[in-house]
Amino acid sequence: MRMYDIIENKRDGKELTDEEIQFFINGYTKGDIPDYQVSALLMAIYFQDMTEKERAILTTVMVQSGDQIDLSEISGIKVDKHSTGGVGDTTTLILAPLVASLGVPVAKMSGRGLGHTGGTIDKLESVPGFHVEITNDEFISLVNQNKVAVIGQSGNLTPADKKLYSLRDVTATVNSIPLIASSIMSKKIAAGADAIVLDVKTGAGAFMKDLNDAKELAKAMVSIGNHVGRKTMAVISDMSQPLGNAIGNALEVKEAIETLQGKGPEDLTELCLTLGSQMVVLGNKANSLDEAKARLEENLHNGKAFEQFKTFLRSQGGDISVAEDPTLLPKASKMVELPAKKGGTVASIIADQIGSAAMMLGAGRATKESEIDLAVGIVLHKKVGDKVEIGEPLLTIHANQSDIQEVQNKLYESIEIVESSVKAPLLVHEIITE
Amino acid sequence: MRMYDIIENKRDGKELTDEEIQFFINGYTKGDIPDYQVSALLMAIYFQDMTEKERAILTTVMVQSGDQIDLSEISGIKVDKHSTGGVGDTTTLILAPLVASLGVPVAKMSGRGLGHTGGTIDKLESVPGFHVEITNDEFISLVNQNKVAVIGQSGNLTPADKKLYSLRDVTATVNSIPLIASSIMSKKIAAGADAIVLDVKTGAGAFMKDLNDAKELAKAMVSIGNHVGRKTMAVISDMSQPLGNAIGNALEVKEAIETLQGKGPEDLTELCLTLGSQMVVLGNKANSLDEAKARLEENLHNGKAFEQFKTFLRSQGGDISVAEDPTLLPKASKMVELPAKKGGTVASIIADQIGSAAMMLGAGRATKESEIDLAVGIVLHKKVGDKVEIGEPLLTIHANQSDIQEVQNKLYESIEIVESSVKAPLLVHEIITE
Repeated sequence: MRMYDIIENKRDGKELTDEEIQFFINGYTKGDIPDYQVSALLMAIYFQDMTEKERAILTTVMVQSGDQIDLSEISGIKVDKHSTGGVGDTTTLILAPLVASLGVPVAKMSGRGLGHTGGTIDKLESVPGFHVEITNDEFISLVNQNKVAVIGQSGNLTPADKKLYSLRDVTATVNSIPLIASSIMSKKIAAGADAIVLDVKTGAGAFMKDLNDAKELAKAMVSIGNHVGRKTMAVISDMSQPLGNAIGNALEVKEAIETLQGKGPEDLTELCLTLGSQMVVLGNKANSLDEAKARLEENLHNGKAFEQFKTFLRSQGGDISVAEDPTLLPKASKMVELPAKKGGTVASIIADQIGSAAMMLGAGRATKESEIDLAVGIVLHKKVGDKVEIGEPLLTIHANQSDIQEVQNKLYESIEIVESSVKAPLLVHEIITE
Repeated sequence: MRMYDIIENKRDGKELTDEEIQFFINGYTKGDIPDYQVSALLMAIYFQDMTEKERAILTTVMVQSGDQIDLSEISGIKVDKHSTGGVGDTTTLILAPLVASLGVPVAKMSGRGLGHTGGTIDKLESVPGFHVEITNDEFISLVNQNKVAVIGQSGNLTPADKKLYSLRDVTATVNSIPLIASSIMSKKIAAGADAIVLDVKTGAGAFMKDLNDAKELAKAMVSIGNHVGRKTMAVISDMSQPLGNAIGNALEVKEAIETLQGKGPEDLTELCLTLGSQMVVLGNKANSLDEAKARLEENLHNGKAFEQFKTFLRSQGGDISVAEDPTLLPKASKMVELPAKKGGTVASIIADQIGSAAMMLGAGRATKESEIDLAVGIVLHKKVGDKVEIGEPLLTIHANQSDIQEVQNKLYESIEIVESSVKAPLLVHEIITE
């Protein structure tokens, strides 16, 4: 078998065989196949796409390229959730204890990540003492005991995907549905999930800005998951404006706490209930989505979800007094309100622009080495569709820097107020199960 | 400027700017841009094509990447001819002295090449003493004196093309019209031609098997030449069956001598007159194609073309007694006729199959290091459209190897004889001038 022929076959629109995909992934991971042949193949895939069968094999071979987490000692169906990422996306912090409160085991491997704000681990580290440096055995026993635990990424998971991603990143081949879908799914599958709920974002703050692209990606991932025997479904949710009100690490933790107490923003709560009920049904802890949703909503209001959160924090060394009193979370040195320059209705709050403003405040990480300021960020007081009067605060900036003029300008540019009335955007566009 | 953006622009179907093409070619030639980014761009070009403007700039930048031959001290318009290659293609050997006999200066830089038979230099080296290792000054003075000389490839011509071609060869990106056209044209232009006549072959024995592909390539090259100020035209000629009757180095030299004496095969003679009259008109040595053709034909019959050939051979150390008596050329140890297994009309003589048979006899070079056997090859006695009786020889095999069974089998498989009548294929499909 020759890599040349594999490139040529894909270039000519042929379906690659299982053996060809194995040959190319294994050869590349081992270093037997050079970057320049793989980048040519990736660009051919960009143009010629891959069939569902090819995508499933590609994912499987990438999973097999490295370690696979064995969660078999955890009883029950392990359901993982993955978000394609957005601005102010606090769902993981809420969902993990929320679905655990109904007995679904959540064994979460998480990272720090690059982006407008930190990853789940960064956010959790706003809680003094909380740590994710636990052994695999501790991790498994914590999940069995409390139904929820988070561990930092470790082991040599999907090295083929890491190597491919680095190459895609410098050859303009990131933006290819089969390559994105197999990359995401290989990581989830290697992390040991039995079933997967995907939150595929769409809109200005999402990787997939266009709804049709988001649908296509969601379908691709659901197909891969189901092809390789992991029950998978996807929710396509709005990311034209930030989700919830808080953007920033400690600010999002505070918002998560409020949501777990049934006092969270409407959109964030609703999305968590939608995603959560799918997880509960996949985890076999409810017979229908309606039943699951009702029981989850109940647990937000009866304190069970919040209790589960505190148990979770405590079990990994976290100071739960912070949960009881979120004012103990890291706080920025100044809070500045941004008054509306005119009255009317909020027509748009461009999510990625708001994310960039949070970055400018220091909430996110531009490179792996960057330090994150856990305290800073933005809290929205108005969302799209809300009425606003001139001078009324649109949001509050939480900053540790002296000069925030540029951030203010950026925020003003990101929010549009119009005279006519505007409807809030649809939160959940579609649910994809096959 | 970043290579990433250049790849992305081409991937998205945008026209690259002059600066982008310069950046990528110069950066790649210097080693500043890695292979893996260039191969991704090449595959994007394969799918998205290049505009006429992009192709012209690419060619110019590749020309400028290395040395350029300065032929300015040769008086007159230097007209070069290029063939895209085929089987039994002896035209260069004939055309060089033929058009020189009408005063068109032919300053030919030639190579050895890989293929079914050797390159022009290999063929000329069938003539004892003939050599192409001459200095540039000798080369120029020979052309000024005799109107024709051949020099071996020297200098650092189009290093960008060499590097790109090596990469295309292993990444399935050879077969792209803009890349083929710019590669060929950059070499011709760097070699100093003022005007260029292209012989673009089509059919089984050609690089472009399909007539439409051949036309597209021809138009691409003509456009590039004219864009960069070198008057260029192309003849699209048949290569479904071998051109002329001889396939093999010394055998083709003998056929060239016969053609220069007005006794050559009809198709080879006709194609040489067609290409030659274009060269003569481009070289300003005739006012019309008809006039040029008539005068070239005259010189084939009045001995002037043949005299010019002998002068040329002598001036570069060749033993002209070989030209007077071609039986002195290298001869194979055995000559075996291939009798027709049935009577009828020859319907096809698949050119590339015949070429492979010649390779099996040792007439060509599979790798740069291979030795060529100048004596061996095939001489056809029948061409497509000819009637043949059972037992009548279709061709003669000239071999130095004891076992030619496999070659004979291959040849039988390559020649089809039918009962119905068959017309000879059209020799010249089209002439493209813009």
